[in-house]
Amino acid sequence: MKRSQLFTKTTKTSPNDEVSNSAKLLIRAGYVYKEMAGVYDYLPLGLRVLNNIMRVIREELNAIGSQELQLTALQNKEVWEASNRWSDEVMDVWFKTKLNAGGELGLAPTHEEPITRLMKPYISSYKDLPVYAYQFQTKFRNELRAKSGIMRTREFMMKDLYSFSKDRSEHDAFYEQCADAYMRIFHRLGIGEDTFRTFASGGAFSKFSDEFQTLCEVGEDTIYLDRDKGIAINEEVYNDATIRDLGLDKTKLEQHKAAEVGNIFTLGYRFSEALDLAYNDEDGSRKQVFMGSYGIGPSRVMGVIAEKLSDEHGLIWPTEIAPYQYYLVGIGEAAERHCAKLAEQAPEIVLWDDRPTARNGEKFADAELLGIPCRVVISDKTLADSKVEIKHRVNGQIELLTLDEFNNKLV
Amino acid sequence: MKRSQLFTKTTKTSPNDEVSNSAKLLIRAGYVYKEMAGVYDYLPLGLRVLNNIMRVIREELNAIGSQELQLTALQNKEVWEASNRWSDEVMDVWFKTKLNAGGELGLAPTHEEPITRLMKPYISSYKDLPVYAYQFQTKFRNELRAKSGIMRTREFMMKDLYSFSKDRSEHDAFYEQCADAYMRIFHRLGIGEDTFRTFASGGAFSKFSDEFQTLCEVGEDTIYLDRDKGIAINEEVYNDATIRDLGLDKTKLEQHKAAEVGNIFTLGYRFSEALDLAYNDEDGSRKQVFMGSYGIGPSRVMGVIAEKLSDEHGLIWPTEIAPYQYYLVGIGEAAERHCAKLAEQAPEIVLWDDRPTARNGEKFADAELLGIPCRVVISDKTLADSKVEIKHRVNGQIELLTLDEFNNKLV
Repeated sequence: MKRSQLFTKTTKTSPNDEVSNSAKLLIRAGYVYKEMAGVYDYLPLGLRVLNNIMRVIREELNAIGSQELQLTALQNKEVWEASNRWSDEVMDVWFKTKLNAGGELGLAPTHEEPITRLMKPYISSYKDLPVYAYQFQTKFRNELRAKSGIMRTREFMMKDLYSFSKDRSEHDAFYEQCADAYMRIFHRLGIGEDTFRTFASGGAFSKFSDEFQTLCEVGEDTIYLDRDKGIAINEEVYNDATIRDLGLDKTKLEQHKAAEVGNIFTLGYRFSEALDLAYNDEDGSRKQVFMGSYGIGPSRVMGVIAEKLSDEHGLIWPTEIAPYQYYLVGIGEAAERHCAKLAEQAPEIVLWDDRPTARNGEKFADAELLGIPCRVVISDKTLADSKVEIKHRVNGQIELLTLDEFNNKLV
Repeated sequence: MKRSQLFTKTTKTSPNDEVSNSAKLLIRAGYVYKEMAGVYDYLPLGLRVLNNIMRVIREELNAIGSQELQLTALQNKEVWEASNRWSDEVMDVWFKTKLNAGGELGLAPTHEEPITRLMKPYISSYKDLPVYAYQFQTKFRNELRAKSGIMRTREFMMKDLYSFSKDRSEHDAFYEQCADAYMRIFHRLGIGEDTFRTFASGGAFSKFSDEFQTLCEVGEDTIYLDRDKGIAINEEVYNDATIRDLGLDKTKLEQHKAAEVGNIFTLGYRFSEALDLAYNDEDGSRKQVFMGSYGIGPSRVMGVIAEKLSDEHGLIWPTEIAPYQYYLVGIGEAAERHCAKLAEQAPEIVLWDDRPTARNGEKFADAELLGIPCRVVISDKTLADSKVEIKHRVNGQIELLTLDEFNNKLV
């Protein structure tokens, strides 16, 4: 990709109306555009990062036997009334709207109800279970406040997975499988070292749930972490009983601010009873389906990554999710010609800064602001030596590769 | 992919509440699920088709230098008031909703206004132009009636591209380039032979626009086609003046029912003036940006393809968009073992019907209903001869391949 083909530009000026550092950097680097408070467009580079995050999640969820589908945002009230979640008093983040043909619709803030109903024609026997289905879908939540950039928004990309199991024990096995998949996802996304499975409130569904909390100064949650065991307790259920249940030692727990990057809930029969999703078991008896739900917000995760993995010069994307792997700067005519060849050869991983009027210093600064993992400088001089200079964004280390070695990275 | 892993099932019963044949087939085959009138979920097989259609469109649009981004559904009124399209009298398909924090929001039925505003920080000089940006985004339209299955819905996937040019002549060149790309897209999607560039009303924007109309008995439009020249006139602008302008012979025009699968509009200065998107030209003068918009609805196109390419036995997907290429049926123990190997080897193109209790006749019927391009039967007998039997869905032709020949198709 040629930089000159990108319509976005970087800017040194931070937006006045953003508090969070990640939002400032993402806007300055041209990754997102703010439509209004809590509502952000994804510009070409930002969309590439978001898509990469989604690809990682998709790969890990497919690997544990889940199937992707896509439900709708528009919802009619019948299915939500069945579970008593249509009322604004019960669910206070609804956006509601009116149908010209008559009737009221809602914009789904989550999808337990419609996916439970959807499964009714497909689940009737124990042979049809278990089912694991997920989607990447835009969620709408009518939040009163929105001030953390893309970390908490009114419209956002959500990966929500739902499990349909015969019973508690089949559910529990998948729940643990999914928890493991989540940790693999966060490791691949570059925040695995700082992300901890966290004991949290089960909300309306069950006594406890599991959150995945990433240590983050501007996170909205407070957790108590046992670093040796790699598990934590959310402040909301932090008490002596919980500590005892988990077999933890209170004196060893570290208090941290953290941002929730994923959660998994045991729903049990909450929705299968409300919507009568049942099956005939092997012994002929009729049983309700045992359910779970599993969320990761890719856009929120992108915000948390931008918040954590950045410095005063800009963003620092992990390799798996960077929009491009190499930011190419050519110095001199022959070098520029060589860059053009490389950019054409590997347009998906090379971003070549071909802007004729930009100074080298500007190009170097942009490479850092954009957070591309490797800045690659090719000058007529390095070219004469058949070398390229690579500077790693994450640690500033510089290495010289031969042209052949670098070429091999592009195939 | 193993059929037993798919949670969806096929059914012989057509839904009572669908008029269109495509909707009946897509629901019977488990490609879509109806949430309510005009609102459909995409089940795993349906999502694969939709994603394939989007992939084809994306490849062709990237090839003409367009950049992908993603705007939001939620819209605040300021940007639409600037162009006088916030009012329900002017735009009668708005879904509107209220923000808990105060104020009214709309769900974007299209995106001319927000993308014009978004470009303001990025377009200031003639050097920044042209810009071609597109998105795949869920559109919401508060249609009074919805009765054509996924061909006309209240929530649907839309590809909308917007062009920003220095002047009319730069615009016209891209307009033609995009029209050519559209025809390449429709050919790859399998409806190119029956899709014609059609002279239509320019709506509020200009005198004329171009539609891409696909001959289709249940289409909502009527067109007058010159088959030799491969162009048509929409009924709405069909008159002697138009016929003369286009240099057509009235006596040679065929009247057909057709479904619109794409459209391109010259917007001119309609939105750049309303939102003041201007640039400094080479001579120092300040000029408005000249705009165009270019739409294809992937979900609508999927409906049109399902409508046209189907028979009494089911769907007939073109190769490029089929959810899987091969529907594998094994007959006999050794054959089943071989099928298992092939399904594992090529899970993205092989769908193996491994259901132990389904009869062969049921499997064959499902292969046809699902519309997979090739049904592949491997029996212990064909296996002994190192052969597989392939039946092509599109024409019913049967061929025998050696195991090696078939294996080569899977790599």
